[in-house]
Amino acid sequence: MVSEQMYKLGTKKSTIRTIFEYGQKRAAEVGAENVFDFSLGNPNVPAPDFIQAAAVDILLHSDPTEVHGYTIAPGKPQVRSALAADLNRRFGMNITEKNLFLTAGAAASVTITMKALAEEGDEFAAIAPFFPEYRVFAEACGGKFVAAAAKTDDFQIDFAALAAVITSRTKAVIVNSPNNPSGAVYSEETLRHLAGLLRAKAEEFGHPIFIIADEPYREIVYDGLTVPCIPLFYENTIVCYSYSKSFSLPGERIGYIIVPDSVADFSRVYGAIAGAARVLTHVNAPSLWQLVIARCAGQTADLGIYARNAALLYEGLTAAGFDCIRPQGAFYLFPKALEADDYAFCARAREHDLLLVPGADFGCPGYFRAAYCVCTEMIERALPRFQKLAETYHEIHE
Amino acid sequence: MVSEQMYKLGTKKSTIRTIFEYGQKRAAEVGAENVFDFSLGNPNVPAPDFIQAAAVDILLHSDPTEVHGYTIAPGKPQVRSALAADLNRRFGMNITEKNLFLTAGAAASVTITMKALAEEGDEFAAIAPFFPEYRVFAEACGGKFVAAAAKTDDFQIDFAALAAVITSRTKAVIVNSPNNPSGAVYSEETLRHLAGLLRAKAEEFGHPIFIIADEPYREIVYDGLTVPCIPLFYENTIVCYSYSKSFSLPGERIGYIIVPDSVADFSRVYGAIAGAARVLTHVNAPSLWQLVIARCAGQTADLGIYARNAALLYEGLTAAGFDCIRPQGAFYLFPKALEADDYAFCARAREHDLLLVPGADFGCPGYFRAAYCVCTEMIERALPRFQKLAETYHEIHE
Repeated sequence: MVSEQMYKLGTKKSTIRTIFEYGQKRAAEVGAENVFDFSLGNPNVPAPDFIQAAAVDILLHSDPTEVHGYTIAPGKPQVRSALAADLNRRFGMNITEKNLFLTAGAAASVTITMKALAEEGDEFAAIAPFFPEYRVFAEACGGKFVAAAAKTDDFQIDFAALAAVITSRTKAVIVNSPNNPSGAVYSEETLRHLAGLLRAKAEEFGHPIFIIADEPYREIVYDGLTVPCIPLFYENTIVCYSYSKSFSLPGERIGYIIVPDSVADFSRVYGAIAGAARVLTHVNAPSLWQLVIARCAGQTADLGIYARNAALLYEGLTAAGFDCIRPQGAFYLFPKALEADDYAFCARAREHDLLLVPGADFGCPGYFRAAYCVCTEMIERALPRFQKLAETYHEIHE
Repeated sequence: MVSEQMYKLGTKKSTIRTIFEYGQKRAAEVGAENVFDFSLGNPNVPAPDFIQAAAVDILLHSDPTEVHGYTIAPGKPQVRSALAADLNRRFGMNITEKNLFLTAGAAASVTITMKALAEEGDEFAAIAPFFPEYRVFAEACGGKFVAAAAKTDDFQIDFAALAAVITSRTKAVIVNSPNNPSGAVYSEETLRHLAGLLRAKAEEFGHPIFIIADEPYREIVYDGLTVPCIPLFYENTIVCYSYSKSFSLPGERIGYIIVPDSVADFSRVYGAIAGAARVLTHVNAPSLWQLVIARCAGQTADLGIYARNAALLYEGLTAAGFDCIRPQGAFYLFPKALEADDYAFCARAREHDLLLVPGADFGCPGYFRAAYCVCTEMIERALPRFQKLAETYHEIHE
């Protein structure tokens, strides 16, 4: 009577959701201050004052039919021009409004792109560890989802593993850097190597293989690192962006897709993106927020708390004996679990009221994700718990 | 290399779009004041001051992480409670927050509902004349679109025609009242008859047949008419609503779905709606606008201009010899074309700089749509043109 597939997708709780709900219940029992919830990737930095000021000014001083009217499907031309100018300035790109398509955030950007590209039997490859919703998006677009195993020493790319999953049906590889959940940022060397691999495979199979660069964490990087601009390394890159993290506006659903001129068959790709947005009924990106992001282009919220939290949690966990790469970006730590079974490890962590997500959920068993987009003081109070948790493993092995 | 279907959907211009673009070009040649564009259903009433005031107040005085954070997929519970209370008060419904799912507007509401319901081989029926995008939505959800012929004497429902298109595979009938493009409002008598037909067919085929009630024009009705609340007539009604017209917020993408308790297998339908929203990547309805609609529940923009425009255009056209039902709601007039071929008629109208949409686009050839969500003064200046256009037909026949 209803679509069984939709029913399952709408009612089967994700691991993260289940953990979060457990945390709410547990907080009611023992007090919120005694539950250490590192499960959710929900920005805890407020949207900056300049965003509020821009929105209020537009509401008070612009013609409401201009502000709230339908926009053309790709978004207001003057908004796209302003964003293009900012992207050119910051990343040395060379785009104009015609290369941008505004969307309702990163999930919409990625799905619209997949739906635009997917032909019968096509495959979309991700690199573990990966955002688990990619599988849902790819399958919803009629594609097949495949994943390359993780390179766990530094969470760059295991090219042998990636090459092994690329077939004649591979339409695109999803590249998510800064990465959720590993916190790694793919280096220029990694990207050069990736470009070389994809060019060789494209040559071998006689058709382009796209990179879908999912970059909602682009501005959240540490220690002065810069995130390489992937389209400058690989011509067939389509960039998906969201303002959820950089402006802390996840509920407002605003982002964009960049289709550079260098993309093979540019006008067909851009046209198919418009068609995919239409059938997914993303009529236009919310119009007030289109105006706000144009006015605030090039700025970000105060993201400094993430760097402080990253350092604090990383130092604390490594001091407690955890094995973890130094976080480079995003707001996740992805340490090795203290036993092979990451589900068992997370269950034991829960006994210490530490709520963590098993790495298997991200295609990388044996690890766990700790989201540190939380208040710093909670991390400070959680560190002794992590210490205690680690000690329970020492006891076993001693 | 890209999805051919998406490319076509993204690049093939609709008739309405083509007419609109012609109008822009023509305006550049002869002056905007000399082009009479009745092609677009874009509200020309500004969003009301109370909407602006609510948005500004929320931006200035609420916690930004509360305002702009992700909401749960169905929308903020307190927002849904406020809307449910208002709907109960206004329409005598008996719903709570659990019956509402907030969406990014009517197109999203309808598509999410279809996607939730559609099983392999399912059919969705509309009643001509109908909003042409229904076909795109139904086919995008893997369904088959069928249409019942129009009852052109009053644009209520031709039940023999509707019965003829309902098969064992009919999952739902789309009911759009006040109707785009006819301007008719289905009467209680029509809805009772419809309920009877669908119950009989459901009995015959052994499964429920849903009504998808697409009601973005619900508050735009004339002469004190009230729009009957379809769920009170038929148990398996799912209501799709948008604030695009009643608050003049089409660009902001905010609306909802109502799944009443009376719907067969309520929890499976609601669950499948959540799944469909997820795969269509409508993560949550824009969060600021969720708060605004809750605060402004029960109010509307000043919709009086549509009644004035309706009367003016209707009187003018009937005086010029056009045959047309008296508009009851929405902001469209749907008169009979002055020749059998509505495309030829609209082409001739264009020679008089009157931009009209052929009825065939809405599944009802021989008619045309004139959208009167335009400034009143343009209608006043257009009436002599309509008069002249009609005279050219008299000349032929005399």
